[in-house]
Parts: sequence; structure tokens; C-alpha cells
Amino acid sequence: MGQKITFASDYTRNAHPRILKRLMGMGLEQNVGYGTDDICRSAADKIKKACECPGAEVFFLVGGTQTNQTIIDMLLKSYEGVVAAQTGHVAAHEAGAIEFSGHKVLTLPSTGEETDTDRYGSNIGKISAKELKAYLETFYGDDNHEHMVFPGAVYISHPTEYGTLYTKKELSDISAVCSKYEIPLFLDGARLGYGLMSKRTDVTLKDIAELTDVFYIGGTKVGAMLGEAVVFTKGGKPLHHVPIIKQHGALLAKGWLLGVQFDELFTDNLYFDISRNAIDMAEKLRDGLKDKGYEFFLDSPTNQQFIIIDDEKLKELEKNVGYSFWEKYDDARTVIRLATDWATTDEDINTLMEYL
Amino acid sequence: MGQKITFASDYTRNAHPRILKRLMGMGLEQNVGYGTDDICRSAADKIKKACECPGAEVFFLVGGTQTNQTIIDMLLKSYEGVVAAQTGHVAAHEAGAIEFSGHKVLTLPSTGEETDTDRYGSNIGKISAKELKAYLETFYGDDNHEHMVFPGAVYISHPTEYGTLYTKKELSDISAVCSKYEIPLFLDGARLGYGLMSKRTDVTLKDIAELTDVFYIGGTKVGAMLGEAVVFTKGGKPLHHVPIIKQHGALLAKGWLLGVQFDELFTDNLYFDISRNAIDMAEKLRDGLKDKGYEFFLDSPTNQQFIIIDDEKLKELEKNVGYSFWEKYDDARTVIRLATDWATTDEDINTLMEYL
Amino acid sequence: MGQKITFASDYTRNAHPRILKRLMGMGLEQNVGYGTDDICRSAADKIKKACECPGAEVFFLVGGTQTNQTIIDMLLKSYEGVVAAQTGHVAAHEAGAIEFSGHKVLTLPSTGEETDTDRYGSNIGKISAKELKAYLETFYGDDNHEHMVFPGAVYISHPTEYGTLYTKKELSDISAVCSKYEIPLFLDGARLGYGLMSKRTDVTLKDIAELTDVFYIGGTKVGAMLGEAVVFTKGGKPLHHVPIIKQHGALLAKGWLLGVQFDELFTDNLYFDISRNAIDMAEKLRDGLKDKGYEFFLDSPTNQQFIIIDDEKLKELEKNVGYSFWEKYDDARTVIRLATDWATTDEDINTLMEYL
Amino acid sequence: MGQKITFASDYTRNAHPRILKRLMGMGLEQNVGYGTDDICRSAADKIKKACECPGAEVFFLVGGTQTNQTIIDMLLKSYEGVVAAQTGHVAAHEAGAIEFSGHKVLTLPSTGEETDTDRYGSNIGKISAKELKAYLETFYGDDNHEHMVFPGAVYISHPTEYGTLYTKKELSDISAVCSKYEIPLFLDGARLGYGLMSKRTDVTLKDIAELTDVFYIGGTKVGAMLGEAVVFTKGGKPLHHVPIIKQHGALLAKGWLLGVQFDELFTDNLYFDISRNAIDMAEKLRDGLKDKGYEFFLDSPTNQQFIIIDDEKLKELEKNVGYSFWEKYDDARTVIRLATDWATTDEDINTLMEYL
Repeated sequence: MGQKITFASDYTRNAHPRILKRLMGMGLEQNVGYGTDDICRSAADKIKKACECPGAEVFFLVGGTQTNQTIIDMLLKSYEGVVAAQTGHVAAHEAGAIEFSGHKVLTLPSTGEETDTDRYGSNIGKISAKELKAYLETFYGDDNHEHMVFPGAVYISHPTEYGTLYTKKELSDISAVCSKYEIPLFLDGARLGYGLMSKRTDVTLKDIAELTDVFYIGGTKVGAMLGEAVVFTKGGKPLHHVPIIKQHGALLAKGWLLGVQFDELFTDNLYFDISRNAIDMAEKLRDGLKDKGYEFFLDSPTNQQFIIIDDEKLKELEKNVGYSFWEKYDDARTVIRLATDWATTDEDINTLMEYL
Repeated sequence: MGQKITFASDYTRNAHPRILKRLMGMGLEQNVGYGTDDICRSAADKIKKACECPGAEVFFLVGGTQTNQTIIDMLLKSYEGVVAAQTGHVAAHEAGAIEFSGHKVLTLPSTGEETDTDRYGSNIGKISAKELKAYLETFYGDDNHEHMVFPGAVYISHPTEYGTLYTKKELSDISAVCSKYEIPLFLDGARLGYGLMSKRTDVTLKDIAELTDVFYIGGTKVGAMLGEAVVFTKGGKPLHHVPIIKQHGALLAKGWLLGVQFDELFTDNLYFDISRNAIDMAEKLRDGLKDKGYEFFLDSPTNQQFIIIDDEKLKELEKNVGYSFWEKYDDARTVIRLATDWATTDEDINTLMEYL
Repeated sequence: MGQKITFASDYTRNAHPRILKRLMGMGLEQNVGYGTDDICRSAADKIKKACECPGAEVFFLVGGTQTNQTIIDMLLKSYEGVVAAQTGHVAAHEAGAIEFSGHKVLTLPSTGEETDTDRYGSNIGKISAKELKAYLETFYGDDNHEHMVFPGAVYISHPTEYGTLYTKKELSDISAVCSKYEIPLFLDGARLGYGLMSKRTDVTLKDIAELTDVFYIGGTKVGAMLGEAVVFTKGGKPLHHVPIIKQHGALLAKGWLLGVQFDELFTDNLYFDISRNAIDMAEKLRDGLKDKGYEFFLDSPTNQQFIIIDDEKLKELEKNVGYSFWEKYDDARTVIRLATDWATTDEDINTLMEYL
Repeated sequence: MGQKITFASDYTRNAHPRILKRLMGMGLEQNVGYGTDDICRSAADKIKKACECPGAEVFFLVGGTQTNQTIIDMLLKSYEGVVAAQTGHVAAHEAGAIEFSGHKVLTLPSTGEETDTDRYGSNIGKISAKELKAYLETFYGDDNHEHMVFPGAVYISHPTEYGTLYTKKELSDISAVCSKYEIPLFLDGARLGYGLMSKRTDVTLKDIAELTDVFYIGGTKVGAMLGEAVVFTKGGKPLHHVPIIKQHGALLAKGWLLGVQFDELFTDNLYFDISRNAIDMAEKLRDGLKDKGYEFFLDSPTNQQFIIIDDEKLKELEKNVGYSFWEKYDDARTVIRLATDWATTDEDINTLMEYL
């Protein structure tokens, strides 16, 4: 990479050492394919326990876009679309994976509710229950919408594309609207660990299991080599979920590879402990940035920090540090993202600070 | 699994120890995402060298169905279909992944040419250049086909779904027909190593690179944890291959995970050496089965062996040995598949023989 | 066209004079759009009465392929395919319209049952209940099919692509198999009138309404300018059928144009009377062909006759008569189709006979 | 309809009497299918002449959504989307027909340029060349967009969804941006006649043929029974346009039905003359509405007029007059659309005025 260190993303590394060790320890052990093995079963059981959701159905997929595409296709009827924030990953950054499966992404503003932003951080990236209700409501009571795409599911991410978090109140309100209109709520938890371990959240894993119909626990960005654990919280997994997954090219032959990783992540609190590290390091980073007088693009309570930086400074920075270009702020400044992860160290932050 | 040993498939195990060791050795090393890293570049270079095909373009995907779906979609125009054998994987065993992307699979008989079967093994599972030509020819010269699906690519697998192999003559003939009708030839090499190391083949990796437009080198079934290396032999990779892959949910965030594995597999001949082991073990198995008087369903020159077995015997066998159900042969007998792999040992075969 | 007369197809003419007259008579009358008008309602009522099927739901679409694509998409779940004869229109002659909507066509042999062909005509083009059952059965009782496309509906046409007809016994048997496996039966009746008025059938419109879940009554080929009447016999029309139709680009703004035509066709037995004419003329044609010693490709009991003709004779014929090329029979002979329609006259047949 | 008269839309009536007469006059005449007949050829020639565009390729489809879906699918590569105004028909009112074919609609604000609105009418419903350029520009020069949907065509309508019109300057600017980025410009002319005959436009049919790559001339709403004439202005019609159309279920068997209508519409200036009538009547309507003090929702220079009306007044109005609900304006008022058409009479407007 040429650079000494990178904060470009939270998916730059291999798996947590405990996972790698376990994978090594399997030697030439043989397992049956496609996620029908005992390890996947064990991992699913541990996840159900962690969610306090014994009736859930759990299975594993490889990556985020794949999971979003497959689950949304499972939830929607052919003529339905999925509601998402304008800035939602499925709306903006999946190269049309939802449309590829024939469905429209129906966008709502991503400005969130008027909540206590001092306490919980920015609202950017979130949909609001109020706007969701106003939108869904128009589809009932008259025949005026037969030429429009019907909303068939609601997609949110937690943390959002901007690292922000729903409050428990917001999540409950959205969930209530979904229930009222009998529309499933799907939560993208690609960075779920970093959301749950934020010091500025009142939302627990149990809350998420209660308030959504299906969500996933991200592994790729949170300690696993790769993998996402899908949780159908009320047990509504489609009858033939295997052909649906296969049809999307998303069925991993060695499904147990995913099971092993989640089995380990959900042993002795590993998933949560390593997530906490990313949060601790993000706070250290945040304090450092503040000290140096950087302007924040938004107030993010999780592992992704967005700052506005002078283009000249940025040019210099990129000789030594990897970062993620977000967008041009104005002619002379750029918004960049700096992400910590489960393995970021104090030393890493110190090194970064030297170059900032 | 309850059983002592399984020959159900060649994707029951983790990666070759050298790969696992290398993955372990990376520690907390950071890499850029989506296959743009140096390791992927190095792996691609080694593959191009092994193919003696310096102008090729190489990238990596996760699994077989995903690769077939994505590459075929890259090759076809919206109204075109892909030609394949009736028994081809894309026609029969991918849960409609090709149709999911809007394309028809146009099937030809899977009975192959009248070749020297004593020398090269059965023809089952192969298409014939003659039948391909007859089929493609009908689409030229009259307007009678505007209501039919146009053939836009030809799909073959080597080894085929039945473990059989094209001869160099057959492959050259099919390639010539494709050239004549300006239709790309795509070769699915999910088990390519086992085909190349067969003792009953005259086809080399270089031949395949010369005679096809795009093919892939299977990793999942041949020593990798997961991964398939796609080779556009003439460099015709689509301009924007990344959004196409992303749109299929097939873009691995940590693309270097795939690069590492192929970099190792194509170092010091590893891919070929471990493939040879599967062939040696398959021959030992074959001899053992013959000695015991088992009837073969077809004569396969690679690592998959298909036998016809009495149902009563099978019932007993499955208490101790994993196998793959293929199809009912008649009321009292069943066709099963037994597959060796890169890690199968003499002892494994001996154990199996005890139960057969 | 250059030719004096054509028997190339049964969709060469405008609508029946009674329909044209009624369309003329509407003047500048205004109607509401999208099939929500009173004329469509009246036409639907007449059709339900003719089918003796008061609980049916009826709506109108423009053409055959459009109808097949839309209805099949209504019936199938995303991962399901439709079962059809190899020679079925949806399998062979719709340019991939079914695959375009993401579904596979699962083909069965088109050789039909061993029925009384002397009485009912050839079996070619038909599926058999026995083979259907054998096929569907494999999807139940084991997990072996999770990598295959699940059958989600059965498509038949009556008359078939070859002008042949199911007997009541055959239709009942197929219907029973569908019921047993809880899979809807869809009958393409693009030429339904010609099937019902054949002198060699024991199937009535009421039978069809009873034995299928959904079928359509073809207008385009049977007296209408354009239009097909879809009948959901048990009332299972999808809740939001309008957006589904719209999504397929199949929602006609002036839906009443279709209603008017079917309203007229189902007044005073017009649909059946004009269909009978095509049959009478086909019989006259058949007798003439026999007298002249032509060899029939198959024994068709409806308005399409298929003969094997010397290429030299054909060359001469096409100077004066339009016909439909079907396929090459051998190096010197060709199979052609000659179709009568609702407006064919004795004189037309006499003229044709002069050139044959 | 229960109402005395309707202004709900411009597709409430059958065809112009001259068209009906010609259709009647065809009697039992036979024509070859699928638009390959001489009448379609004649109609195409007349259209090319009217466009002063001899190199154009012209064919006919049935309806607007079908045409939008089919043409856009012809223009786009699999991973590309179509750029449109947020309020564009393809974005808002086609029930996901574009997404059904696998493509995303990429939306721009529909607020238009800062043009001379006094002269040309409102900007609502239009995209601006400036915003289009800013959008397209982001896709060039960095690799940051490989996870986004690439713009592959630009869709505009003229008149727009709100009856507004592009000026020649605006159209030229948009066309120039498209040329710069080598992206085809597609103009939806479902109501083209009403745009061309507006008294507040400087855009001619020739201009449209010059400035777009493909556009269509709407028949359904402008004097035809049904039908839209697609014009590939630079001759870039896809090689196999027939299977593409067939695959969309959009190939009309009796294609000459469409040819006849356009042949008549483009004889003796009929299309333009009847379009002018709708404009004259819209102006009369507009004056009347102004006199009565109605508030306009926007200033539309074509046949669709949008007013804001008290809900109580509306309740009364709908007893006698058909209108089109557009949207709620506030708690007590509603936006409705009143559309004139090619057959609207002075008397019709007078009658309407009595009830307003």
C-alpha cells in the first residue's frame, strides 16, 4: 500500500487470531456442505441466545451487498420495492444490486428525527418514523398508487452509512409503523458490533431482535475473515431459502467456514469485546482530532469519523496514511472518513496523529 | 457427520496447510479492498505465467455458481442465452442463477462426440462440436429465429458434471466453431486441477488458455479455502467489471483473501501437485471398486467416480461412509458418486474399501 | 405481400366486421382507463357466464407472449420455474420472455400420452400427466433438489404449438396431478376457439374453467383486432394485479378497447361461430391435401395443418401463396404450416388448391 | 362513468375518425406480421420525412410504459441506469417497469433551469443541463464510482409529466452534455403533438430529431387508437431489435395495425392539426379558469392544466365532471389535472365551465 498505516476502512485485515487459530486447528477435518453442518448449528444457537430470541432462524452469508440483495429479494413480492434512506447502502453504493434482482429502492430523506443529538450523535443517514408513516400511508385508502412501486419492506442500517445510530425510541417508532402497515423491517448490521458498543447508544442486541423482522450481524468488518449472520427474528425464513440463496450465487459450498467464525465470535463475548476496542480507539481519535482543531462533518458515535480537511493537508497526509475519500466539501476542502476497527491500537492512533 | 469418513464431495475440507499457514502469518497486516491489492496482482501474474498467456486479465471470485452467473452475464447481450450441455451445472444445478440474471440456458445433448473412449473415458456430460455447429448455423441465413433466444456464449466444463474430459481435438473443434460464429467460449474449471492431472488427458493449461475466451481455475475444490480465478485469456474483460461483479453481490470486500490463496497455489507447482494426489487416489479407488466387482455408471478419468450400488448395500454403507446420491438407477439400485480430493490418503481409501 | 393469398398464419386480418362496426359506433365517447370501465365489466360477465364459472376473475391483455409472461410471473415465486412441453410456445418461441422475468422454463417431452390418436389426432406438442407426475414427485421427499429450480406452475396450450388437442381425460389427469402437488395449472388458449370447435374434441369451455387455475381466451387469432381474455377460474387473481401488469409494460391505457371486442365476441355466440368456420375450412383443406396426395407431418384436428412438401414444389407455391416455414424435413423436403382462420372462405381454399 | 363529461386524461377516446374509417376500409385484407409489412414501411417513411431525418430507423410499439422500458433496455448495458427527473414517468409512475428489466432510475431534481418562464411556462418536471453535467462528471476522473450505478442513458419527456416544455436552448444544452459524455439522449414524446403545437415553444420536430438519439411520437394520446412511433434518429437501432421487443412481451402480432394509424396521422398534417385543437381548447380552458379566479399549480403551456381547488368545491365538481387527482395541496385543497385532447370541443369547455 506504500503507506505506513491505513484508516481507510474497517475491512483491511484478516480475522481475529482466535478465529484463525481455530481454522488452523481443524486440519483436514471434513464437513458437510452448504451450511447444514453442526458448527453452523452451534453458531446459530449461540447467536439466538445472545439475542434472547429462541424462536429465531439463523443462517450465514458471505458479504454485505450479497446479504442485502438476497434478504430483500426474500422479503419482497415481484412488484414491490424496498424503502431506504437516500444515503442507504442499498440506495447508493451497491452498483444496482437491488435493481438487478428486479426491485426498486424507494428513498426517504436521510435526515432522521429531531432527537437529542447532543446525547446520541448526528441524525444524518437515518430515516424518521414520521416520514416513513407519511409515505406508507399514501398507499392505503385510495387506488391512486396502482402505477407506483409498492413498498414491501423497510431497510435501515445500524450504524448507518455515516456511522450514526438510531435511538431505542426511534427504532421502536419505526418498528411500530412497520407493524401497523404489515411491512417487514430489515436492519443491516454490517457494523452492528460497533453500534452496540458505542457509548452513546441505548439500543441492545435484544432490542434489535425484538424490533426487527430480520437483521444481520456483520462479521466481515468486525473480527471475522468474512461472513454475515442473518437472523430471522420471528422465524419467518422462506420455506426454500437454499434455492433462493443459490439463485443469487450466494450459497457458499463450505458453509461451515462461516459457522466456525461466528461460533468463535459468540464464545466468551468476543464479538462485543473486540467491538468495544474500535469504539475506544475512535474516541481517542476523536479527542485527538478535536485537539488539533479539525472540523467534523458530522458527530458520529461509532468507529467511523468524518472530518473536513484542507486539500493541501490531505495531499501530504496521504503519503503516510490511508483514508477514505467521502466527497468534496468545497473547492479547497474534502470530507474524508477515518475508521478504526477491532484491532486498532493506541499506537496506531498515535502514529496517525503525528501525520494529521 | 456421524460417519467415519466421507467421499461425498471434494469441498469438505479447509485449505491446504501452506495456505492456512500463510493466512496465519499475515497477522494484523492491512490491505486495500476489492482485489486492487498487490497480492492479487502477484497471484494474477503467476497464473498468467502458468497459462503462458501474458495478455490475459485475471481476477478472483468466491464460488462456482457465482462465477458462472457473473461471467455469463458479462458475455451476453440482454436478449442472448448461453449454450450448455443438458447436464451442465448452469443448466441443472444452480437453482436458476442464470435465469435470475435474465438469460436462458440453451441446451444441447450431453452425449459428446464419437471419440476414443477407451483412451479418454466416457463422453457423457460433453457437448459435441458437430451438434454445436448445427445449432448455431440455424441462427444465420434466415429471419426465422427472431422469436427465439439467440446464442451469445458457449459454456462447457472441464471436467464435466460427470468427471469426464474433453480431448484436445474436441476442445479445438468446439473452439473453431465458436470462432466461426464469433461467439465466446467459456470454460468452467471448478475442478480444473483434477482434469489437468488426469492420466487420461492430452489437454494442458496452455491449451485451455489458447482455446477459450474466458475460463476459471477452481480453488474451492482444489486446495483453497474458497475462491475461483477467472482468466480472460484474450484480455476482453469488460471495461467496468467491478460494478458488474458488485451488482451480482459477488464483490468480496477483502479480495486479497482470494489473491493470497491463488498466490500460494501457483507457487512451486502446488496446485498441480495436490491435484495429482486426488487422481492417484481416484485410481486406487477405481481399482479397488473393480476388484470388488462394482459396476461403474460411466468411465470417469478424474477424481469423481460413479458406481451403481444395491440399495441394501448402500443402506449399510451410509452408516460409516459419506457419499453423494446421484440418481436412482432402478427399483433396487442407486447411482452414487465417490469423490477423492487433494488431501485424500491411502489410508482413507483403505478404510472406504473395508465398508464397500 | 405480392402473393394472391396467404395461409401463413391466423393473425393476418383485422377484427370481425361486427367488432369494427361497434368500435366505429363509439364515436368520440369517453371511457375511464386501464380496464376499470363498464364495458370491460360487461365483457367479463359474459365470459364468466360462457365458462359457467361465476366466481372467476377476468381481465384483458394485448397479446400472447405478454400474457404468458405476465401470468406466469404472477403465479411463480422468485425461485420457481414453469413446467412446459419442450415445444411449448414459452419454451421455444418467445425470445426468452420468461427468462427475462427471472424464471426458468422446465421442459418435459412433448410427446403426450398413448391416447386414441385415430379419434383425437396426434399427441405431438402435449405433455403427459404421467411424465408430469414423475417429474414433480422428485421434488418431494428428499432434500436433493435444493440446487434445482422448483416447479411453481404448469403451462400447457390448447390447441398446442402443433394444433393438437388434449382429450378431456388427459386434461383431467394433468389437473389432478397439479392439484396433488398444489401447483397451479395455466392454459394458453391463444387459439382456444379453434380447439373448442374442433370436431375431434370432447373438451368444452366449462371443462377448461373447471380443470385449470387460470387460462386465457385468445382474441388476436380469433376474430379480435387484438386482445386476450385472462380468466382466473377460482378467483385467485393477485391482490395488486395492476402494478404487476404495469411493471411488465402490459397495461393498456385504453383497456376498454379490449373489453369492447370481447363483449362483442361473447354476444350471440360470435366467438364460437367464427371459430367453427376456421375448422370447417381446415377440414376442406385437409381433404383437398389428401386428395392431392400430400403427406401430413402430423394429424392436427384444428385450424393449423402441417404438411411435408418437396422444395421444388414449394418454390413454385410461394409465388402465389403465403405459408409458414416450420422446419426442414430432409434435404429435399420442408415442413410447412397452412392456417385457416375465422374469415377463410371456400373460395380461398379453392384458390389455394389450384396452386398446391 | 356517471359523469357528463371528463377531462381526466387525454386517452379516453378511440381513434380519430379518419383512422377508424381506414381501419374499417381494410375489410378482410391480409398482412404479414410483426411490423414487417408495407404499411409500416410507408408510415416510417412519412415520419422520417416529417422529421427531416432520412437516416432514421422507425418502428412501432403499443404503449408508453412498454416503449420506455424496451427502449431504455436497448440503450443500457446490464450494469447501467437511466438518468431521469425525480418526477419523470419512468421514475414515478411505471410501477417499477425499469427496475423489472434490471436497471436503476438515477434521479435528478425536476426543477429545470432558470429560464424565461414568462415566455415558456414553468420549469417543473424538467432536468437541467447544468445539473446533468455535474452529475455525469463525477463518474469520470476517479475510481470512486465503481460501487455506484453508471449512467448509461438520459431520459426526458416533452411535454413533461407536468405538461411543461423544454426550450430549444435547454434541449440543445442537454444534448451537448450527452454528446460530451457519449451517453444517448432518449425523449419520451407520449404527448409530443401537444408539445409541438404549443404556442409557447420554439422546439420543432426536426429539432428533436437532431438533438436526441432516440425519441417516440405518441399516438395513444394524440389521435390514435393505440401506438407509439419509435425513431432512432441516427440509425442506431440494435441489430436484433425484434427479439428484444419480443422478450419484453411488446411485439404486436398485427404490427400493421400500428402502421396504419401512423400512416394516416402523418398524411395531410393530421397529427399536427388535431394536436393544435387540444392546445386551443387548453387555452380556452386556461382563460376560463383565470376568469373564475382559480389558482394554478404551475404554468403549463400544453394540454394539461393543473389547478388548486377547494375540497368542497371538488366534491361537487366530481358529480358532473371527470378529472385527475394529482396530490393533496393542504388539508383543505387538492391539486387536480384537467386535460384537453385532439377531440375536445368548445362546447365541452363551456360545459366544464358551468360546473367549475
